[in-house]
Amino acid sequence: MNYAQIAGQLLDKVRASRPLLHHITNYVVMNDNANVALHIGAAPVMAHALEEMAEMAGIASTLIVNIGTLNQEWIVAMEAAMTKAGQRQIPLLLDPVGAGATSLRTQTSLRFLQQYRVTMLKGNLGEISVLAGLDGKVRGVDSESGAEPSLAAQKGAERFGIPVAVTGKEDFVSDGKRTLRISNGSHWLGTITGSGCSAATVMGAFLAVEKDAVLAAASALSAYSVASEIAEERQPEGPASFKVAFFDALYRLTPQMVTERANIQEV
Amino acid sequence: MNYAQIAGQLLDKVRASRPLLHHITNYVVMNDNANVALHIGAAPVMAHALEEMAEMAGIASTLIVNIGTLNQEWIVAMEAAMTKAGQRQIPLLLDPVGAGATSLRTQTSLRFLQQYRVTMLKGNLGEISVLAGLDGKVRGVDSESGAEPSLAAQKGAERFGIPVAVTGKEDFVSDGKRTLRISNGSHWLGTITGSGCSAATVMGAFLAVEKDAVLAAASALSAYSVASEIAEERQPEGPASFKVAFFDALYRLTPQMVTERANIQEV
Amino acid sequence: MNYAQIAGQLLDKVRASRPLLHHITNYVVMNDNANVALHIGAAPVMAHALEEMAEMAGIASTLIVNIGTLNQEWIVAMEAAMTKAGQRQIPLLLDPVGAGATSLRTQTSLRFLQQYRVTMLKGNLGEISVLAGLDGKVRGVDSESGAEPSLAAQKGAERFGIPVAVTGKEDFVSDGKRTLRISNGSHWLGTITGSGCSAATVMGAFLAVEKDAVLAAASALSAYSVASEIAEERQPEGPASFKVAFFDALYRLTPQMVTERANIQEV
Repeated sequence: MNYAQIAGQLLDKVRASRPLLHHITNYVVMNDNANVALHIGAAPVMAHALEEMAEMAGIASTLIVNIGTLNQEWIVAMEAAMTKAGQRQIPLLLDPVGAGATSLRTQTSLRFLQQYRVTMLKGNLGEISVLAGLDGKVRGVDSESGAEPSLAAQKGAERFGIPVAVTGKEDFVSDGKRTLRISNGSHWLGTITGSGCSAATVMGAFLAVEKDAVLAAASALSAYSVASEIAEERQPEGPASFKVAFFDALYRLTPQMVTERANIQEV
Repeated sequence: MNYAQIAGQLLDKVRASRPLLHHITNYVVMNDNANVALHIGAAPVMAHALEEMAEMAGIASTLIVNIGTLNQEWIVAMEAAMTKAGQRQIPLLLDPVGAGATSLRTQTSLRFLQQYRVTMLKGNLGEISVLAGLDGKVRGVDSESGAEPSLAAQKGAERFGIPVAVTGKEDFVSDGKRTLRISNGSHWLGTITGSGCSAATVMGAFLAVEKDAVLAAASALSAYSVASEIAEERQPEGPASFKVAFFDALYRLTPQMVTERANIQEV
Repeated sequence: MNYAQIAGQLLDKVRASRPLLHHITNYVVMNDNANVALHIGAAPVMAHALEEMAEMAGIASTLIVNIGTLNQEWIVAMEAAMTKAGQRQIPLLLDPVGAGATSLRTQTSLRFLQQYRVTMLKGNLGEISVLAGLDGKVRGVDSESGAEPSLAAQKGAERFGIPVAVTGKEDFVSDGKRTLRISNGSHWLGTITGSGCSAATVMGAFLAVEKDAVLAAASALSAYSVASEIAEERQPEGPASFKVAFFDALYRLTPQMVTERANIQEV
């Protein structure tokens, strides 16, 4: 399969259909995620009040649940939105930010995975390792793990029965059988807050236009990372210059750029 | 009336008096709105706890209520602040973000309009159309409507008995009798999140220095849009570069620049 | 004591140890504070749910409590985190944003200072003046005071029995006996929202690596302000360009740059 070509085509589909991405995400990245959604060609909505969850998830193309600044009230709202997403069978992406750092985050993530129809789980190596029962350690929102990231994705997918993406220097997406490695990116991504959360926004957009979740996620991570490479080539003087160049690059990203640069391999 | 000249003079008054803008606004744009307030020459305060609403609205020059990330707790706080604003007869600007997308937002907006002394209602065409009972559709925070924007502003003003601003490619402000069209702006404004919310910040600043709310709102929207034109002339490479240039331009904006470029016409 | 040299050395220590900074901070600045923490070499975590406060404060290097968007629920969470910080004897920095503007903020700040083991109190002149019982006035988050800032820091330290930092054009840090003046900075800092809150982030990082809190705070404020000077030299066209250059400069800041430029004097 020509993954690079598909990645480009999916970007085209996102731009053509402008999927509505209902985010229940953390306060830190709300502005960034909304901008990234707009730049990639989707429409963002940030909403978290229980009273409007069913309605908002009822018109969304994808639901993105990010537990970065979780509390009890939001958990209830997330559950209402996830219930609606399940009924409508729209994609539901779970980003368990900080799972492993506190039991609130770990237990809530595990419960969500058991009780709701999550389409894809996406996290860094520490988060996925902890949730999948592998060796992993999460310190705040940093993490380390002795596990191989490709294995963590695979084991996670086996454990939860859904595709899992492990992001990092290289990204891995697996459904337990097929595992894809995405070798694009820039070291600058690690210098700004929320780069993982914004990757989830792009994944949510691609999941809205492609049923094969592994393909959608790998394409999205590749497109996102290609934009970071383009931004790095502008030789930014620091993280804030990089962020400006990166967001600009996401907006200017064409299917052709993605296809030319995407490095997606089966492992 | 020389609207362009008045617009410049009002910017001067804002800079001279540094009005305190009490925002109860959504999480997505809080940082942007605070910066825009500073850049235009006002002082922002973001506060939403019920316990301090009366005190904070009690020292504010203008109260700005934005329902972009509404929940029950915030509604109660908004009501306390609006009550105080009404007692003090300070300007109260309502930005019904996402009205029409969920009944929580639609019903809350309508109730606020009925029960409180709102000075001005400001929204995009879909939001105002829905609230005014015209044909309109809101999808998340996007919207469409079959209504003419100038008519929507006029009908909204008639229905609620207060001036209404409809923002878009061109902006319209009407009190039902007089309707002004503001033909300034940049396509880049649509590529960043919260550009409508930040317009409300500038409107709040101008409402603090000018009792004729139609004049204040039209002048504010023109000044805001003139800054976007100046930013566009810098040929930004994407939305993030535009945003930097735009915020810089708001800060450097002079009354003379506004007067030279403002395009405000009675329709 | 060669304060400039120490300031550089402490930056080196921060970079070497990557302290975890648990922020309970306001919505407006969460993204900025997280980025500033990363750029200076620390690891940020933003968390505020009562259920995870003890755990999160239990792994943090420093706890930073900022009351900029306070409500009752957050007060309870702050208290749980401060209790844990006290038990673990980790640095606890209190930033009483807007104290003096409402009694919620003033009374909560005073109670926190009485009931918890605050390591350092940091605010602008108005906030510290009000809390220390001096002549001061706070309007939203602006402030004015008839007090001399060095005296306000000293009086505050005497009153609360802990070191106090007063930030402004020049910054002052005092433990009541020793008072240091930091004469670095840029006028551009006053044109962006949250520059004081982000200074607290850097102070929190330095407090994690140096037990002498006056020394740590003065070094941090100097390093932060040196970065603003470097950014100003790039001749930014406005506040947003400045912010980009400033965040870049924080990231590129070296111990040598700090030592060369730091202007810290005993007064």
